[in-house]
Amino acid sequence: MEINLTKELKRFVSEDRVSKNETVLSLHSKDESFHTPRQPDVVVFPIDTEEVVNILKFANENEIPVVPFGVGSGLEGQVIPIKGGISLDFQLMNQIVEISPVDLLVRVQPGVMRKHLNKELGKYGLFFSVDPGADASIGGMAATNASGTTAVRYGSMKENVRNLQVVLAEGKIIQTGGKAKKSSSGYHLTELFVGSEGTLGIFTEITLKVYGISEMITAARAVFPSVKQAVQAAVSLLSLGVPIARIELLDARSIKQINMATGSKYVEDVTLFLEFHGIKDSLANEVYLTKELFIDSGCYQFEFESDSNGRARLWDARHNLFYAYLHSNPGKKMMNTDVCVPLSKLAEAVEQSRKFIDESGLDGTVAGHIGDGNFHAGIVIDPKNPFDMARANRVNEQIVDFALTHGGTCTGEHGVGLGKMKYQKREHGDALDIMKSFKRVLDPKGILNPGKIFE
Amino acid sequence: MEINLTKELKRFVSEDRVSKNETVLSLHSKDESFHTPRQPDVVVFPIDTEEVVNILKFANENEIPVVPFGVGSGLEGQVIPIKGGISLDFQLMNQIVEISPVDLLVRVQPGVMRKHLNKELGKYGLFFSVDPGADASIGGMAATNASGTTAVRYGSMKENVRNLQVVLAEGKIIQTGGKAKKSSSGYHLTELFVGSEGTLGIFTEITLKVYGISEMITAARAVFPSVKQAVQAAVSLLSLGVPIARIELLDARSIKQINMATGSKYVEDVTLFLEFHGIKDSLANEVYLTKELFIDSGCYQFEFESDSNGRARLWDARHNLFYAYLHSNPGKKMMNTDVCVPLSKLAEAVEQSRKFIDESGLDGTVAGHIGDGNFHAGIVIDPKNPFDMARANRVNEQIVDFALTHGGTCTGEHGVGLGKMKYQKREHGDALDIMKSFKRVLDPKGILNPGKIFE
Repeated sequence: MEINLTKELKRFVSEDRVSKNETVLSLHSKDESFHTPRQPDVVVFPIDTEEVVNILKFANENEIPVVPFGVGSGLEGQVIPIKGGISLDFQLMNQIVEISPVDLLVRVQPGVMRKHLNKELGKYGLFFSVDPGADASIGGMAATNASGTTAVRYGSMKENVRNLQVVLAEGKIIQTGGKAKKSSSGYHLTELFVGSEGTLGIFTEITLKVYGISEMITAARAVFPSVKQAVQAAVSLLSLGVPIARIELLDARSIKQINMATGSKYVEDVTLFLEFHGIKDSLANEVYLTKELFIDSGCYQFEFESDSNGRARLWDARHNLFYAYLHSNPGKKMMNTDVCVPLSKLAEAVEQSRKFIDESGLDGTVAGHIGDGNFHAGIVIDPKNPFDMARANRVNEQIVDFALTHGGTCTGEHGVGLGKMKYQKREHGDALDIMKSFKRVLDPKGILNPGKIFE
Repeated sequence: MEINLTKELKRFVSEDRVSKNETVLSLHSKDESFHTPRQPDVVVFPIDTEEVVNILKFANENEIPVVPFGVGSGLEGQVIPIKGGISLDFQLMNQIVEISPVDLLVRVQPGVMRKHLNKELGKYGLFFSVDPGADASIGGMAATNASGTTAVRYGSMKENVRNLQVVLAEGKIIQTGGKAKKSSSGYHLTELFVGSEGTLGIFTEITLKVYGISEMITAARAVFPSVKQAVQAAVSLLSLGVPIARIELLDARSIKQINMATGSKYVEDVTLFLEFHGIKDSLANEVYLTKELFIDSGCYQFEFESDSNGRARLWDARHNLFYAYLHSNPGKKMMNTDVCVPLSKLAEAVEQSRKFIDESGLDGTVAGHIGDGNFHAGIVIDPKNPFDMARANRVNEQIVDFALTHGGTCTGEHGVGLGKMKYQKREHGDALDIMKSFKRVLDPKGILNPGKIFE
């Protein structure tokens, strides 16, 4: 029996929040990636947990796919409803529920945007650390275990989500953790749900760790003659325990692209972008020590960006790196690799990646979160050109192969989505069966973001 | 059909490593807690993963309980084989398999002892951060999600285990993670297994994060007129982002006991024991700032222990606090509470706990890892005296009730074992059903440490 999806959903959600408008469907058919768009059958905008419960109960009963949607800034197609069904858009669940300055915690709804959250936290002298560049929704960031430039010091979402309120497929509500900083009670479920990409349950509230804003922030730029020396410098700094807040590597080709796109005049060589957070006097000492150590490791230019404008310019350049490529290549897209490797293999991985791109004849960037061993090769492609796609896929595979051969992962922060499914068996071996069995337990009818993470 | 357990096990393990010796059985019947001992049917000492696989296959086929055993330093009866069966002692699997200084990783067998590991890491200028006081085995620490005095800066086992090699009930071997610092690939299984107390699988290799030894370490002692002021001082310090390495609170009664037991002459008031790790010049600044801030918060004595002997004395006093009580109470045991509460509720929780102990007429200490909101009320009891037990259980329940009422947990680091089972439903609600369903998936016959965590 065919059911009238829209009509049924309007039993739980007010009419204006159930949409089959073509523009709305189209907006929910894609993310920032190169993956092929696919429209949902309907888009629903819940306003509270109860509505989510009712929608899930209905969807589960009728075996209708449900795909949670934040803002569409993902990079592996996680929000693309490849089997149709309901796109559950959280933009109306955008409340900061509770800020607890003494507990260094904030509780938010999944539709809260990262930048908005930081603006509000700023009023209390606090900040939320995870910074993937894009102004993503907190729900999406938790669902993909996002991280970005600050993870080297503050960790990824996994380390910064204290508790999740999750609606399960059958409509039950659970809390995965509590407010305590530590717990040895029961099994740790929070980390299992973080990064599960909407396949195990739907988040309706997220409790996050926050931090006091540092007394002082200083940025710097350090130029090296080789990737190897830059990586060596970073490793030395980390071994020494300098609590660097950001340490990003851009290869020479990437700096050149930034100069072309923004008019900056950075030396076009391997560069580390750095940021230090701390107490004023301690920081001065750390920065001094870093400079000394870097110069010992071959750094030939070390410049500060001490005022906030200079700092903003520096990080804008880093975060807009992909756009710097795309602006010069209208109509093109970026295929991003996202491997994370042990630090001892990082220099080789970065150098190999550049070689793979150059050999493919495609253009691209190699840049990343060097303190974590996580970097991105961004390959410029026309997704409609099969020759581009074949070459880019080949580069992607070469880079992932290198990572998996050396104990790394196919995805450090973008998630599996559609693009990294094919590497799951090789990376996880028999542990993949355990993951699948958990999926079956929590979502026996397979309605939660079907076709993601697992085939 | 009755099977001859010893004879069967000798098919997989050499004769001298299967024991029914009365002393050996007795050693494996208990831990450091007050929980009633129970002997296993047999103790087996495997030497490699393959033996563990064979033992588990056999045990699973014949539905024989298997209880992993490290060194028996646990505090909630996790290693007590309450349903008999096999105690699997890992003392012969005590190899440090691989130290990777550049990756800041070490791979060990579960029987490696914490202090031995640190001695070996020291040769590379590295250390493993988790310090529960006792010289526990790494396997046991991972199984209970141990933490201790340094977790405020470096985290608990959950944050420091990068990968586990686990033998599942049916004898399959999985890796829960990899070598990469970050991953968004598949579901995060490592955190689920850390703290699972041998109920989901048996660890046979553990990859740990390690850190470079700090250039300088300074300890200090700060005395306050009230718990409230001491907690307030600690919260201010953390909000400011001072990366304090240890910050322990001992109440006045506890300091008095240390003085009695060790001959020290500490002021008998609420005291914070502190440790700072860092680069020399930065550290001096942090210590200065801490002192200023503490004095503003009411601290009336702030003394350094800068040489390593003074530091060792300070931390010995802290770690031997329980023994300081037990020495003066021969034949007695300690019942430890282990709640962890949001920092905003910590002062009240500590004060209430002292009140509950005093009201009960029992003696005891209140001390803990204040930066995490985790503290222990240690109540001196004669486990054979029902009146002692009834009163101590009442105090335990009062303290846990306070924690759970305020979003905390019944156990911050000791684990559930036997003592905290009764609080699991209240703490986890419907999430407990999810935990149980995972247990059923991984251990359908219930052979893995039965009767722990869940009834």
